[in-house]
Amino acid sequence: MQGGERRNAVILVSGGMDSATALAEAKSAGFRCHALTINYGQRHTCELKAAENVARAFHVADHKTLKLDLRLFGGSALTADESVPKDRSDDEIGHGIPVTYVPARNTIFLSLALAWAETLSAFDIFIGVNCLDYSGYPDCRPEFISAFERVADLATAAGVEGRGKFTIHSPLLRLTKAQIIQRGLELGVDFSLTHTCYDPTPAGESCGHCDACHLRLAAFREVGLTDPIVYAK
Amino acid sequence: MQGGERRNAVILVSGGMDSATALAEAKSAGFRCHALTINYGQRHTCELKAAENVARAFHVADHKTLKLDLRLFGGSALTADESVPKDRSDDEIGHGIPVTYVPARNTIFLSLALAWAETLSAFDIFIGVNCLDYSGYPDCRPEFISAFERVADLATAAGVEGRGKFTIHSPLLRLTKAQIIQRGLELGVDFSLTHTCYDPTPAGESCGHCDACHLRLAAFREVGLTDPIVYAK
Repeated sequence: MQGGERRNAVILVSGGMDSATALAEAKSAGFRCHALTINYGQRHTCELKAAENVARAFHVADHKTLKLDLRLFGGSALTADESVPKDRSDDEIGHGIPVTYVPARNTIFLSLALAWAETLSAFDIFIGVNCLDYSGYPDCRPEFISAFERVADLATAAGVEGRGKFTIHSPLLRLTKAQIIQRGLELGVDFSLTHTCYDPTPAGESCGHCDACHLRLAAFREVGLTDPIVYAK
Repeated sequence: MQGGERRNAVILVSGGMDSATALAEAKSAGFRCHALTINYGQRHTCELKAAENVARAFHVADHKTLKLDLRLFGGSALTADESVPKDRSDDEIGHGIPVTYVPARNTIFLSLALAWAETLSAFDIFIGVNCLDYSGYPDCRPEFISAFERVADLATAAGVEGRGKFTIHSPLLRLTKAQIIQRGLELGVDFSLTHTCYDPTPAGESCGHCDACHLRLAAFREVGLTDPIVYAK
C-alpha cells in the first residue's frame, strides 16, 4: 500500500500470541488498525487486559471491547463450569475437538468484525487462526474462512453495492506456534504482553499445565527461547 | 415429524410480525422451539417485551435474550443517533438500502443462533426474513441464506463430525407482508402482541409514520383487516 490514504482494517485481538502476531502483520502491511476484542464470558479477564496492552503497544487507531455473554448458551469449558483438561500428551492435544471449543465462536467474532468493518468502510479483517488450531477447531480451517468471505460479500450493503470485496486475512494459517513466535519477533511483538493460559491463577499467572500452556511452552523451547511470561510455581 | 422425539430448533424472535409468524411455522412443523432474542441496543425496548409475549403465547421450550451492544459500532438509524425517516412513499421505501439497515445484523444473529443450536444438538434455525426485506436489506436475500448454511456446516463440530447438516429456514422468504398476515392468522399468531414501529412513543404506541408502520398498515388494509395494535394519535 504505497501513496494515498491508508486503508482501514479490523483485527480480532484476543490477548493471545496469535492475534498479537496477526495485528503485527496488519500493521506491517500498512493498514490503519482497528482492534476488536470480544469479552464473551471467558473465565480469565487477564486475557482482556493483555488485549489492551497488545493493542496499545501497536498504537492502533482504535480499540473496542464488546461484551457478549456466550455463557448464556454454555457448551464449552471456556464459558461453562466444566474443568479445563491438564497435562495431556501431544497426541491427546492433537486429536479431536477439544472441550475448550466454543460453539460457533469464530463465526460470531468474524460477524462482529464485519459489522465494524462496514461502518468504517473497511474491507479487510484479520484473524489469527493457524494450522495448529485447525487440527482441533472446525472454525479455524481455510474452507471455513473462504465460506465466511462469501457471506461477508453477500451480507453487506458495501458488498452488494460493489464498493469492494471483503478479505478475511489469516496470515498465520499455515504457521506452527514456533513459526508464529519467530514471525512475531521479526515484526516486533512483545510476547511478554500476551496471555495464553486457559486456567490462570487469580493473580494472572499461567498454570503451565493446560493444553494452551503446554503448546506455548513447547513452541518457545523449539525456537530456543525462554517464554517471558510468569508461570505459577 | 411423526413418531419419536421432537427435534430442537432455534428461532430468532424479534417481537415483530415476521418472526412471530416464523415461530408459528416452526411450531406447526413440530419442532421443540427455542426462541432467541437479541437486545442489540435498538432504541425501543417495547420490541423486547413483544418478543417475550410472542414466545410465551407459543409455549416455547425456552426463551433467551442476549445483550449485545451494537451501538458500539454505530452505522444505523436503529442503533445510532440518526433520525428514522417518516412518511416516505412506497417508491422511496422500495428502493435502495434504508438507513435502518444495521451492518451485518443477520450474519451476527444467525451466528448466535448457530452457537445455541450447536449446544442443543439442533440443526434447524428459523429466521423471518422476507421478500419485502430483501429489496432493501442485503442480508435478507436467498443467496445470503444459502451462503450462511455453508458457513454453519463448516464452522461447527456438529457439522464437521457429520452429525447433521444445518438448515436455515426462512419460511416467509417469498411472502409479502399481506401474505405473512394471512399465514400468521392461519397458524394462530396474535398480532396484537407484536411490535413493528421504528419510533414508538415512550408508552410504546406506534408512530404510524415510519417505513415499518407504513408497510404494516398497508398490509392490514390489503387483507381487509384492522391492525390490532395501538397507534399514537
